[in-house]
Amino acid sequence: MVLVLRDRADADQVDYLKAWLKTMGVETRAVVGNEQTIMGLIGDTSRIDMELLQSLDIVESVRRIQEPYKSANRKFHPDDTVVRVGDASIGGGGFAIIAGPCSVETEAQVVAIARAVKDAGAAMLRGGAFKPRTSPYAFQGLRAEGIELLLKAKEETGLPVVSEVMDISQLPLFEHVDVIQVGARNMQNFELLKELGQLRKPVLIKRGLANTLQELLMSAEYVMAGGNPNIILCERGIRTFETETRNTLDLSAVPVLREKTHLPVIVDPSHATGVARWVPALSLAAAAVGADGLIVEVHNDPKHALCDGAQSLTPEMFSKLAERLRGVHAVGARSF
Amino acid sequence: MVLVLRDRADADQVDYLKAWLKTMGVETRAVVGNEQTIMGLIGDTSRIDMELLQSLDIVESVRRIQEPYKSANRKFHPDDTVVRVGDASIGGGGFAIIAGPCSVETEAQVVAIARAVKDAGAAMLRGGAFKPRTSPYAFQGLRAEGIELLLKAKEETGLPVVSEVMDISQLPLFEHVDVIQVGARNMQNFELLKELGQLRKPVLIKRGLANTLQELLMSAEYVMAGGNPNIILCERGIRTFETETRNTLDLSAVPVLREKTHLPVIVDPSHATGVARWVPALSLAAAAVGADGLIVEVHNDPKHALCDGAQSLTPEMFSKLAERLRGVHAVGARSF
Amino acid sequence: MVLVLRDRADADQVDYLKAWLKTMGVETRAVVGNEQTIMGLIGDTSRIDMELLQSLDIVESVRRIQEPYKSANRKFHPDDTVVRVGDASIGGGGFAIIAGPCSVETEAQVVAIARAVKDAGAAMLRGGAFKPRTSPYAFQGLRAEGIELLLKAKEETGLPVVSEVMDISQLPLFEHVDVIQVGARNMQNFELLKELGQLRKPVLIKRGLANTLQELLMSAEYVMAGGNPNIILCERGIRTFETETRNTLDLSAVPVLREKTHLPVIVDPSHATGVARWVPALSLAAAAVGADGLIVEVHNDPKHALCDGAQSLTPEMFSKLAERLRGVHAVGARSF
Amino acid sequence: MVLVLRDRADADQVDYLKAWLKTMGVETRAVVGNEQTIMGLIGDTSRIDMELLQSLDIVESVRRIQEPYKSANRKFHPDDTVVRVGDASIGGGGFAIIAGPCSVETEAQVVAIARAVKDAGAAMLRGGAFKPRTSPYAFQGLRAEGIELLLKAKEETGLPVVSEVMDISQLPLFEHVDVIQVGARNMQNFELLKELGQLRKPVLIKRGLANTLQELLMSAEYVMAGGNPNIILCERGIRTFETETRNTLDLSAVPVLREKTHLPVIVDPSHATGVARWVPALSLAAAAVGADGLIVEVHNDPKHALCDGAQSLTPEMFSKLAERLRGVHAVGARSF
Repeated sequence: MVLVLRDRADADQVDYLKAWLKTMGVETRAVVGNEQTIMGLIGDTSRIDMELLQSLDIVESVRRIQEPYKSANRKFHPDDTVVRVGDASIGGGGFAIIAGPCSVETEAQVVAIARAVKDAGAAMLRGGAFKPRTSPYAFQGLRAEGIELLLKAKEETGLPVVSEVMDISQLPLFEHVDVIQVGARNMQNFELLKELGQLRKPVLIKRGLANTLQELLMSAEYVMAGGNPNIILCERGIRTFETETRNTLDLSAVPVLREKTHLPVIVDPSHATGVARWVPALSLAAAAVGADGLIVEVHNDPKHALCDGAQSLTPEMFSKLAERLRGVHAVGARSF
Repeated sequence: MVLVLRDRADADQVDYLKAWLKTMGVETRAVVGNEQTIMGLIGDTSRIDMELLQSLDIVESVRRIQEPYKSANRKFHPDDTVVRVGDASIGGGGFAIIAGPCSVETEAQVVAIARAVKDAGAAMLRGGAFKPRTSPYAFQGLRAEGIELLLKAKEETGLPVVSEVMDISQLPLFEHVDVIQVGARNMQNFELLKELGQLRKPVLIKRGLANTLQELLMSAEYVMAGGNPNIILCERGIRTFETETRNTLDLSAVPVLREKTHLPVIVDPSHATGVARWVPALSLAAAAVGADGLIVEVHNDPKHALCDGAQSLTPEMFSKLAERLRGVHAVGARSF
Repeated sequence: MVLVLRDRADADQVDYLKAWLKTMGVETRAVVGNEQTIMGLIGDTSRIDMELLQSLDIVESVRRIQEPYKSANRKFHPDDTVVRVGDASIGGGGFAIIAGPCSVETEAQVVAIARAVKDAGAAMLRGGAFKPRTSPYAFQGLRAEGIELLLKAKEETGLPVVSEVMDISQLPLFEHVDVIQVGARNMQNFELLKELGQLRKPVLIKRGLANTLQELLMSAEYVMAGGNPNIILCERGIRTFETETRNTLDLSAVPVLREKTHLPVIVDPSHATGVARWVPALSLAAAAVGADGLIVEVHNDPKHALCDGAQSLTPEMFSKLAERLRGVHAVGARSF
Repeated sequence: MVLVLRDRADADQVDYLKAWLKTMGVETRAVVGNEQTIMGLIGDTSRIDMELLQSLDIVESVRRIQEPYKSANRKFHPDDTVVRVGDASIGGGGFAIIAGPCSVETEAQVVAIARAVKDAGAAMLRGGAFKPRTSPYAFQGLRAEGIELLLKAKEETGLPVVSEVMDISQLPLFEHVDVIQVGARNMQNFELLKELGQLRKPVLIKRGLANTLQELLMSAEYVMAGGNPNIILCERGIRTFETETRNTLDLSAVPVLREKTHLPVIVDPSHATGVARWVPALSLAAAAVGADGLIVEVHNDPKHALCDGAQSLTPEMFSKLAERLRGVHAVGARSF
């Protein structure tokens, strides 16, 4: 349920209302928007009398929110959320590009790639230290050492870094990682999400292989319920019957999510297609459809990458693409 | 199997080769491309000795085509196919927009919409006379009368028209329809495809609800096997578990198909999303991803449309979108 | 909407009610069940005043049917429909087995298989004359000649026969075919369904690759709307992401359909799995889950079958399976 | 790669072979089967010369295993694995029934249900203490207290218990839980699987919402790679486009898995359908298809269950079903 409060509502009356709601077992979140103050009610509002609230002087309107997600709901927070990461920001109208290797392999590799993507205009560096591999016999990532090398690349270039955490026990290693990524296979690892809700660091949540957009928003709701509002959502392809591509990139996720939530939405065309030569076309489509950004795999020697080389762009291809992306975003859905 | 013939190959030797292949039960299709002459072999080529062919003077190289589609295969026909429809053409670099109502309802309705979409830059008019409805109790379309009204709109505006045929028995009514559409539910109506292969009129084949891109190409192959090369493929969303959208638009179909086939590929964002307000964003994405065109539903009174009003754009919205589309196409994947 | 009429309702009053409903544009279907007489109303019942009907002497109760399928709805026809085919019957408690080759290839082949399956207890023979093939270059079936050979096998063994029709134009050839099959890819060939509604011959409708159970019932509704109530539904696997099996057999279709419709439901484990050695286990599961029967592919020389040999049982395996099936059906869901 | 060793192979020569393989970076697992001794090679066997091994006196045959799963592979371990849990055992020919409430709610509730299912023949009790809920606002389970109440029920009835763990940090609480369950959403929580591989306690792995059977086997491989061979696999329905059922139960998983792996396979018809009245039919189908057992939800007051009441059987219905299941299993695929 949301209440829209009247302009210049009496502060004492607002406090009194909050206290009363608290006795009814309902928490409040006041969101000050550009145009109005919205008070969101979280908890079991089924016993709250809407007409009673509507009758209060300070209340302009009352509306029940049907959707199970509240904090993540745009009805609850009309303005876009902008997630700030160092000098970069995701959301609010721009198109942020995050790029880097699937795995951190050596210091030379990750630093070289970091420099290349920075020169090409990337706002952040991605690199995997803890790799989710379907097979226990496959390279599992450099783990703690991988985080250190990633942070070296951050030092060398000034680029903020994002990396995937796979278990709560690994979180202490992520102290200097700027954005913590929740992988597709962990989108409904609810214990991990609750833990991330205790932090204030930005969290990038990837949509699960077969999770609905509503389930993605509920995973965001888990993190927000803990008090952490800094969430970036990511569409990375869903599992379907088609076998030409690794997954099926669902670009309609972008307009649908922008309507339902205030959280920024980026796109990962690399894991979606699984094939490097199709990544540019889908990246341009992501810019045109109005996404807030892109997260894409770049490797300086894809043939010898320790994982996902087939879907990685070379630095040259990435640079050429990055140049084109902002122009397309500018004439795409965001300005329509 | 394809043979690349040497430049200025002796004509008599070429004829002799064709005749010999015929005795082996193999038909040939010579395709003269911009740069080379390719002779495609259709039929059971398993007994053909590749080395023998390679040794002929006139043959530059021989390659087996693994894919089950031959005529539709780009290896067989390297240059883009351009389908000409009156003054319009689909394929070859431009972005053709086809627009119109889901159903033809009255003469006034279809003529008004035709004028509006023409003014906005549409190359062709769509309109359904035979409607595939899940329920036998739903409006089935005006049928023969619907075709006549559509042709009236063609007369009034000069716009070529495309309409869906649902059964072989209806084909005589389509004599003056410029492009015959095979609906998603008929993509594997093989008897219908064989019949359309006998015509020379352009055929628009919509990808089935749960058909792979390879199956779509095999359906095109059915039509081409009959001798009709004028095919336009259409991605219109596939069926998945997600329920926010009517289907899931698979834009990766565009780069994947452009790689595998020479046939033009357009996108239908209306049936894909089922929701008018999301159609513009996905249309812009379709232009950016490099499609050859768009087919979109437009109705002058969506609230009262006899079918699919929820996904139809108003003429005003369509006009605004059409203005933007060509610019996005120009800076999208096709020029990357 | 359905009305339950009181026992021994006055016949004149019933006629008067029907006539009045007709003036309101609503047709009636009286269904006499074991326990009550139900009058189903078909058409636009939105203007009918339920309370008015409820107040009539002859009416015991009135209920709106929400589901879009009416004639196929069990609320409309509480007793199981039994489809009689020669001496065989499908529905009503038994377990009917339909078996035969994927394609009719030669007279010797189809007669031999017919004799074998008859000895093993099959109630009907299946055999394809018109084959739906993804590729235009694959064997398309013996067509008219195939039907003739199938009828020869019928003559030799007395087994009724079922075969797939692919287009309305082929129907004249099916005059002596006992059950006409609508293949999965034609489940929403609405023109074909309308035509089959004009016949009185039993129709076997296979669920489409990605069609919901409700869509399957609406396809049955198309046939029933034409006046043909003799429909057998068939679950044959749906398309999913899993690749070990050709499709994913959805056995929950059986209890769900038995609840919603009175039409009999059989299972095709051959096309579902695509692998002969898994067919017996799934056939036994189909019997246990309460299906009305099974349709399974049997070939006397699977390695050399012209299509789908990989999923065909040998006559020996079929015989062994058939012996076991009725016992399992007897202790399965139908007697629970 | 697997080697089949000759009967009464010289022990010293076997040790020598193992040592040599170790220097090549390959570990060995000897599996003594009923009929032969198999030595499985784990690791990178690409440099191992198969012909060289074949030439050794002690080696009868050598075969490369193509599948990415080795320890879980039946080629590696031909005999069925039997997982023993107290007096119960899962695998090896019987049909074990695991039953209990979705959530442990109160001591009275779980003890009453435990008694009822025990009387009806259940081999184990299930009960959720840590509940994976899509919404952070839904009941999350009684957690540590829930485990204690479950253990009380174990004490009262002697039934071994199975419960879901959601995070590595919770494992200490599971010390007296007999079988640890990995939920569908955690099937690819690789860090959790690695940790469970360190235990020797049985682990029940549920197939993920959209995971392939091969991915399920790779998740088992993660646990086995840690040295824990006590794994029970569970098919619980996959996510598809069909909406009548909560998921689509894929019973073909049973014959497919029995062919590829030696690990026991059970079925969960409750989460698969989501509807209590369809659970019996699918349970009977699971018995007929040859599963090693069933895990089903039972609640003594489904209308007031704190979660999943809609899919829970009453004790009476469960008792009636349990009586029927073993008989069906006996005449089903396992004895075919």
